[in-house]
Amino acid sequence: MNTTERLIVVILAGGSGTRLWPRSRQALPKQFLDLTGQGTMLHETYARLAPLVPAERMLVITNQQYVDLARQQLPELPPEHIIGEPAPRGTAAAVGLGAVMAQHLRPDAIMASVHADHLILKPERFRAALAAAAEVAERGALVTLGIQPTFAHTGLGYVGQGEALPPAGGHPVYRVVRFVEKPDLPTAERFLAGGRHSWNSGLFAWRVDRILAEFSRHMPDLHAGLAEIGQALGGPAADETLQRIFPTLPHQTIDYGIMERASDIAVLPVDIGWTDIGSWGTLLEVLDGDQAGNVVRGEAPVFTQDTRNTLIYTADRLVAAIGLEGLVIVDSGDALLICPKDRAEDVRQAVDWLKQTGREGYLVDVKGETLRQASG
Amino acid sequence: MNTTERLIVVILAGGSGTRLWPRSRQALPKQFLDLTGQGTMLHETYARLAPLVPAERMLVITNQQYVDLARQQLPELPPEHIIGEPAPRGTAAAVGLGAVMAQHLRPDAIMASVHADHLILKPERFRAALAAAAEVAERGALVTLGIQPTFAHTGLGYVGQGEALPPAGGHPVYRVVRFVEKPDLPTAERFLAGGRHSWNSGLFAWRVDRILAEFSRHMPDLHAGLAEIGQALGGPAADETLQRIFPTLPHQTIDYGIMERASDIAVLPVDIGWTDIGSWGTLLEVLDGDQAGNVVRGEAPVFTQDTRNTLIYTADRLVAAIGLEGLVIVDSGDALLICPKDRAEDVRQAVDWLKQTGREGYLVDVKGETLRQASG
Repeated sequence: MNTTERLIVVILAGGSGTRLWPRSRQALPKQFLDLTGQGTMLHETYARLAPLVPAERMLVITNQQYVDLARQQLPELPPEHIIGEPAPRGTAAAVGLGAVMAQHLRPDAIMASVHADHLILKPERFRAALAAAAEVAERGALVTLGIQPTFAHTGLGYVGQGEALPPAGGHPVYRVVRFVEKPDLPTAERFLAGGRHSWNSGLFAWRVDRILAEFSRHMPDLHAGLAEIGQALGGPAADETLQRIFPTLPHQTIDYGIMERASDIAVLPVDIGWTDIGSWGTLLEVLDGDQAGNVVRGEAPVFTQDTRNTLIYTADRLVAAIGLEGLVIVDSGDALLICPKDRAEDVRQAVDWLKQTGREGYLVDVKGETLRQASG
Repeated sequence: MNTTERLIVVILAGGSGTRLWPRSRQALPKQFLDLTGQGTMLHETYARLAPLVPAERMLVITNQQYVDLARQQLPELPPEHIIGEPAPRGTAAAVGLGAVMAQHLRPDAIMASVHADHLILKPERFRAALAAAAEVAERGALVTLGIQPTFAHTGLGYVGQGEALPPAGGHPVYRVVRFVEKPDLPTAERFLAGGRHSWNSGLFAWRVDRILAEFSRHMPDLHAGLAEIGQALGGPAADETLQRIFPTLPHQTIDYGIMERASDIAVLPVDIGWTDIGSWGTLLEVLDGDQAGNVVRGEAPVFTQDTRNTLIYTADRLVAAIGLEGLVIVDSGDALLICPKDRAEDVRQAVDWLKQTGREGYLVDVKGETLRQASG
């Protein structure tokens, strides 16, 4: 039996960051935005998986407040496959919830865990890598997809590669010798030069029995809670149990809670055009631009003259950009961000200012006009 | 009798340029905008004259379509002192209409002609200069206020100074030897170096009998039409006559039609902080900025971080500007302009594009939201 037939994908869609303000808001975080012009991040995540895994074998774990939004954006999925966490408890609990749900669907499931707010520009390679990861997972390992570093990134975790393991689907596979939290620059440069470290993408695959065994070993309290939630699944007390138990689960990341403690972890170094979209500047780098290197997205008319390497997201008003170089211009319903692309991470300064000056409303949702969000 | 008691000011408020797009529109040109944050250009023009001339001795000549707007913005003036031209016929006809109206109010009037869309940063000096100009005009001369050039401007006309005439109110006065249309750069540099040329501000003073005599001599067709309009003033056929005659008047500028042809013209070189606001860049230069040289105007909250020498006009949305230098950012109801300050004149490129792509609507008025315009 082909391992991908046992593959169940858990899409993590619960984040609510501010790095893409003024587009991303608490009520409409990154994963629900159409940043590429081709669909929302969540729907794109579904669409790139769909040729590999049918919608019936996809699960979405999101925050309770986003369940309706996620169901709107993913009409392809059975609604009950889109689950809201009653409270955010970190990625360990989210992944664990996905695991018990996958196990409920299919006890011999091989589970893949992916994020709804990452960009993957090479979907065919991504699917091949995920199929290979499932194959390695079937052998028993916890598997992570490692992204081949292109620069000394200090904003990501790293995975250290050890001995070579049998390849899968043409992909080399290595034993993981360690997970490293965000390194300092000299360390990141050493990792890059050494060629034995990958970026930790947070893209995982494992058998559900194996990951639940790891939860039992390393996070027994979490495991006990998950087991209770899992036993109630499909029964009349399912929702009540989730509501009661989930908020009491330990708050932890899957990396710290499991991956850094477990043994028998394999990494597949892959080149899938992955990015976690750390800032508007990232989008300017990775999205397809015009001949002048401008990336223009949105519904409104845009006039550019002598403008290069500039990102323009329009909302409801026309934008005329003349003589600009390397700028980020993000219009939204009620706020406008303008900064050089290499200052895009300083959007957090604006966010802090909004908090300090009692303007949190600009972080919650878009006043006045609602941004149109395509569902596909 | 003090000459200023005979002074009647004619405010020309008929222009409809596009250099301040996207704020200025055909339905709301520059003179009706609040660019300084202290009131609309038209109301500021009134306010800086008011200490010298009471509202009852002010007249406004504007386009017919702006009469209601002008009356709204100038509740201080008798409504019948705000007159709409049935069709635009150039500044000669506008000035001529002002002259016959001034004559109707007071046959011995000394008339001053000023523009509603110019900025004058030193109002006290302006009033002193205008009083002095009225004194010179009373002696019989056509008088123009010449602006002492600060650089080799090629976008303005120049006035060449000849022999010194008797001073007025402490102001030196010179005979005008010639008017020069916009010169090329070498000529402008020669004018600047020579110290005998002023910028032609379009600020004039003269006795109404004298200017009407000049119309009679140099533009007899125009004079005949004006005479017919003037004779009807105050009677039941006044409006019908204006509507019938005015559109048939010759289309000409006052500079070409009268000033370049007349003799006995005097110039008062003045330093009154005058600018005709040729572009958004001009406003950044002349308006009062914060410590970082940023000029911020509008109703919406603005966050600036590491931003210098930047002009920000907000409309209804918050603006976050990070790491910017020397930019012009003009938000309006339905369009947004972003360009370096020294490219601000290229707004005409955007205007051309709007015309070429069938988007003239963006030049006519502001869609959706109406910009709030203070009346004072």
